[in-house]
Amino acid sequence: MYILSSAELPAENQTKLKNAFPEETFVFCNNMDEASEFLLEANIIITYGEDLTENILDQASQLKWVMVIAAGIDKLPFEALNKRNILVTSAKGIHRAPMSEYVFMMLMLVYRQGKKLIENEKNKVWTRDIHMEEITGKSMLIAGTGVIGKEIAKVAKAFQMKTIGVSRSGRDISHFDKNIAREEMIHYLPEVDFVVSVLPSTPETKGFFQYEHFKAMQGHAVFINIGRGDTVRGEEILKAVRDKEIYHAVLDVFETEPLPSDDPFWEEENITVTTHLSGVSPHYHNRALDIFSENLKAFQEDRNELMNIVDTDKGY
Amino acid sequence: MYILSSAELPAENQTKLKNAFPEETFVFCNNMDEASEFLLEANIIITYGEDLTENILDQASQLKWVMVIAAGIDKLPFEALNKRNILVTSAKGIHRAPMSEYVFMMLMLVYRQGKKLIENEKNKVWTRDIHMEEITGKSMLIAGTGVIGKEIAKVAKAFQMKTIGVSRSGRDISHFDKNIAREEMIHYLPEVDFVVSVLPSTPETKGFFQYEHFKAMQGHAVFINIGRGDTVRGEEILKAVRDKEIYHAVLDVFETEPLPSDDPFWEEENITVTTHLSGVSPHYHNRALDIFSENLKAFQEDRNELMNIVDTDKGY
Repeated sequence: MYILSSAELPAENQTKLKNAFPEETFVFCNNMDEASEFLLEANIIITYGEDLTENILDQASQLKWVMVIAAGIDKLPFEALNKRNILVTSAKGIHRAPMSEYVFMMLMLVYRQGKKLIENEKNKVWTRDIHMEEITGKSMLIAGTGVIGKEIAKVAKAFQMKTIGVSRSGRDISHFDKNIAREEMIHYLPEVDFVVSVLPSTPETKGFFQYEHFKAMQGHAVFINIGRGDTVRGEEILKAVRDKEIYHAVLDVFETEPLPSDDPFWEEENITVTTHLSGVSPHYHNRALDIFSENLKAFQEDRNELMNIVDTDKGY
Repeated sequence: MYILSSAELPAENQTKLKNAFPEETFVFCNNMDEASEFLLEANIIITYGEDLTENILDQASQLKWVMVIAAGIDKLPFEALNKRNILVTSAKGIHRAPMSEYVFMMLMLVYRQGKKLIENEKNKVWTRDIHMEEITGKSMLIAGTGVIGKEIAKVAKAFQMKTIGVSRSGRDISHFDKNIAREEMIHYLPEVDFVVSVLPSTPETKGFFQYEHFKAMQGHAVFINIGRGDTVRGEEILKAVRDKEIYHAVLDVFETEPLPSDDPFWEEENITVTTHLSGVSPHYHNRALDIFSENLKAFQEDRNELMNIVDTDKGY
């Protein structure tokens, strides 16, 4: 098979793939521009998922399978993929460790005055007169109960938190003390301390969090968005923070990325901005390509056991 | 009984104690200077533990019990207390939540480049080109396996870490994958990623960590001291960091506190300084005085069931 990667991969990962599958033809490119001349022959494309357009697909007439080595797949041309019945798999799950770490790091930075500690160190100020809250024993609502949401809930339980999971169905999921359906969420917001969104971008989740949700939260609540920026409108977060409906918002994702330098988020005291990096990990490529390798073995043997198959009809 | 507090207590805690024990006489002072005129009558002294001298004890001829509402008791005049057979209890255990949170907040700040993230936010820099390590799946050695060490190990397990506990005896303790005696520690240091010390100050622990220990650690190791400053000499930490025997040291306690403003720790890039506040918590007084109240009930009824009795012979 002819395997074309438009995703820039570390040299060691390229070598590892070639050694593991000597019978296959690999062409490694650094971007789709470079990859485009090989599209005609490609049976499999490895991509970060943001460079696949309908036009590209049209050129790849031999294409059978797209492996997206990212968790977010919302930019794929689903209709065209679906029409041609092209298999799509993702690297869902590889971000669970870094994203869970991100949530607790940022939560403690906010709740335990991490910025102040760093500032005091810089200025050589010795003081113990700092009001530091605890996260232990608090309650956390997590919208999205997939692998990432579950990992976050597991760590939350170690901090003795009460965990509430929000999903389409509300069915029971491990590490959550309670699971509720999306439409029930508003009734639980008044009783939780932290709200974490790991929602992907789908037609159903666009604008999911509304001002009324922030209004329902407690004044000391912290909202953390590591899902997708379009699940909540920026101006509603800003209004909620300025109106003190919530205490703080930690945002890693935005409606427009990169976040424009004149966006008021950057300077708002009770909003912490990071640059869509909650999933960054030194193990990223290894983990993603481990999934690909397992899937490639199954694909070679025509086994119907691929991991992380994406439903191109539904878009997730 | 005549209960004298030299520890400044919030008004609500004072009221709560008076209401809970209307039959006792409480005198609340803001420091030992204020309290000194009442020493003669005191049967019980509530103190932060740093203001009790032999001279003070001599004035308190009716004293039967000292309640130290702190975890660290190393400044007590043990010999004099022991000679007069005065009961001493501590607030051991009340710091486990904030101290455990501190460890993971600081560890992630270091390992996941928290300072850089905050700096980028300040400068409105959008970049995803940051090398962020993960703490998940790493190994952590914890010197001190009391309530605080155990709490840290519990959270470490949620981050899928391997946990090694170092104690006097090396006996099995929950949340630790392996428990070793102090003298075995050096053999395990080459295989761990993080070393956390929660050691108290006792004659046995003074200067416990030596340069050879840092030398045995890996170059990417992080050392965190939230125990007592005299368990390791500052110059040995500094040398270890400068020689790159370890990657980073996070220090909340020091040989001299407050840390002098000309101490090189403040400016050393791979040393993070905080100001002895890992145990700071808004629940501090409630938790400490809950222990005192439980003990006072037992003391009133002459029950031999007080919590956290300190062995004045051994000093812990």
